[in-house]
This record gives sequence, C-alpha cells and structure tokens, in this order.
Amino acid sequence: MKKIITISREFGSGGRTIGKQVAEQMGYQFYDKELIEKIAQEAGLSREFVEKSGEHSPGKNMFSYAFVGRGINGVSVEDYLWRKQREIILELAEQGNCVIVGRCADYILRDRTDSLHVFIHADLDKRIERVVKLYGETDQNPQKRLADKDKTRRLNYKYYTDRIWGMSQNYDITLNSGKIGLERCGEMIVELAKVL
Amino acid sequence: MKKIITISREFGSGGRTIGKQVAEQMGYQFYDKELIEKIAQEAGLSREFVEKSGEHSPGKNMFSYAFVGRGINGVSVEDYLWRKQREIILELAEQGNCVIVGRCADYILRDRTDSLHVFIHADLDKRIERVVKLYGETDQNPQKRLADKDKTRRLNYKYYTDRIWGMSQNYDITLNSGKIGLERCGEMIVELAKVL
Repeated sequence: MKKIITISREFGSGGRTIGKQVAEQMGYQFYDKELIEKIAQEAGLSREFVEKSGEHSPGKNMFSYAFVGRGINGVSVEDYLWRKQREIILELAEQGNCVIVGRCADYILRDRTDSLHVFIHADLDKRIERVVKLYGETDQNPQKRLADKDKTRRLNYKYYTDRIWGMSQNYDITLNSGKIGLERCGEMIVELAKVL
Repeated sequence: MKKIITISREFGSGGRTIGKQVAEQMGYQFYDKELIEKIAQEAGLSREFVEKSGEHSPGKNMFSYAFVGRGINGVSVEDYLWRKQREIILELAEQGNCVIVGRCADYILRDRTDSLHVFIHADLDKRIERVVKLYGETDQNPQKRLADKDKTRRLNYKYYTDRIWGMSQNYDITLNSGKIGLERCGEMIVELAKVL
C-alpha cells in the first residue's frame, strides 16, 4: 500500500479531478496546488505573489525577477517560494496518506519508496474541449492558453529539477486521460496504490 | 477492445516478456523485433545487415553509411530497411489482433484508433540485474551496455519520428516494470485493451 501519491499533469488533462477521486477512494488527504500555495502564504508570502509566481522559474521572466527584487537574504522570491513549498511537501509526506497534485512533488519525493508517482496527459483537442467547458471562453485562443500553461510548467520543472517534464522515466505510471477516461484513470491508480 | 497493442521499451525492462504475456492472454499474434526483421529479410536484405543495422539511424554512424554504400536507388540501406519495416507493420496492423514490440510501431500506427500504445521502463539497477541474469556477463560493463542500447534506440526513434523516445505523451500508458512487476504490467495492459 502506497502512502503518498503524487499527480503531475498537463493543463486541461483532468489530473486534479483524478487526484481528488483517488484521495476520496483511498480516504487520503488531498493537497492541490492551491492548498500548498496557501500554506506557503502562511509562511509569509503575499497571496498575489504566490498566485502569480507559484509556477514560474526565475529563468522564465527576467522582468518579474527584477520587479520583485532580491527578496529574502539575497535569494529570489521564486526560489524562496520553491524552498518553502519543498519543505511543506516533505512535511506532508512525512504525515503520509495523501495525494499531492503538482508542485514538482514527484521530484521532491523521488526517493521515498512509499510513494506512487503519476503523470496525466491528453491530446490537445480533448484538453481544449475540457478547458473551454470548465473555465469558459476567454479573449485568448484556447490552444495558445494551453501551450503557455504547459510551457510554464515545463520550464519551471526543468529549472528546479533538471529533468524533462512528462518523461515517462520520472513516473511509475503515466496515463492518457483523453483516451482512457478520467474515472478509469482514477480506478487504475487506486488499484495500483493498494497492491504495491 | 483494442486490436493492436504496441510495446516500446527500455533495454532490460522486460517489455518483450510483457508483450508476450499480453499476446498469450489476448490470443493475439506476437511480433517482436526479430520477427519483423526476418520478414524484412525476406524482402531482400541480408540477415547480417538487418541484425546489425535494424536499430541504427544513418545519422548515428557515418562509417556504416559509407560502408554499405548508397544501397537501392540512391536510398541508404538503413532508410530502405526502415521503409520495408514500416510497410510490414502497417500490413500486420491491417490484419489486426496483434502485439508489436519495438520498431517505432507506436509512431507508425499513431493514427489508428483501434490501437493501444505502451512504453515500459525501469530503474537502471533493476535493468542491469535483469540483463546480467538473462544474457550473462560480458567484457563490457553492464551499465555501459544499457546506456549504449538506449542511446541507439533514442537516436533511431528521433531520426525516424522526430519525437523524443520515452515521452509519456507518445503513449496511452507507460509503466515502471521495476516497481510494478512484469506480470502486473501485463495484466494492466490486458485489462485496458479489453475495456477500451
């Protein structure tokens, strides 16, 4: 039985929904991006900053770096946020029985043998369909929106982990939710977590 | 029910063994690298050449390219082999109910909706253990042997598909056989192929 399940996901693939289902079926705590950011906030970062920069690497946007300044003790605020989130994820894992979505948790907890690392992806058309349905239309074309989100996650992951985001070797199981369906993805993860 | 299952795999991950199990449990034909090469051979390439060059891209080894010459109608023999194997895989898929291991079959059959694409990987230590157990020790250190094999497959895949080998987005499911176990990997694939 795996005590910690990390779920990384492409934007619009339904990874968060799958994670929630898994947490419910396992009776585990559910920590998504927002919750971890909230905790980091309590650690002393403003809500606005955390919301804006939580998924950015300093390498991504030179202006943001210059803008927020050198932050705490000469460390960029992005790096400070990364450290805080890392500490929080390590603590949550120590408590066990949880599902953690996003935040490079697969990397942060890579050496824990009591964890199962999952990546969820789907074809672009399926993700566009989902994003438009969930969040509605915006001025920005949905294809561009998805590409931007994925790029940010990829750069952030690369910056802090030096690994390629979405490489199967980083995960125990990866699933195409567009082809398999969200509910079945959740069931497969639950079954696997229970027997391993 | 998926009629075609393609299995790509890291060297030593047991992907071929898993594929065989899946084919038996589904009652499907099983085509591995060797079989497809045998068919290509019948298409007019020597056994020696096919064995040596089946996984090479012309870009990989300039000497091999110069050595075998321009081959047939100004096409390099590697490219000729690739085309033949591609034709054979498309034909086998047309007949349906089969498991195909390796040979970029995931890419060649990417547009078929009746297919399930699988990638199998495992941590280096697990793969070394398996390779030494199966093929015995050689003069070459096993870590180097694995790295060379994987590099060849990665370059070959990149050359002919322009995709990154092992990226989860290329597959419907990827599994860490070292953590999950070969038999359970096979069972998960069978279940998925049956319900989709």
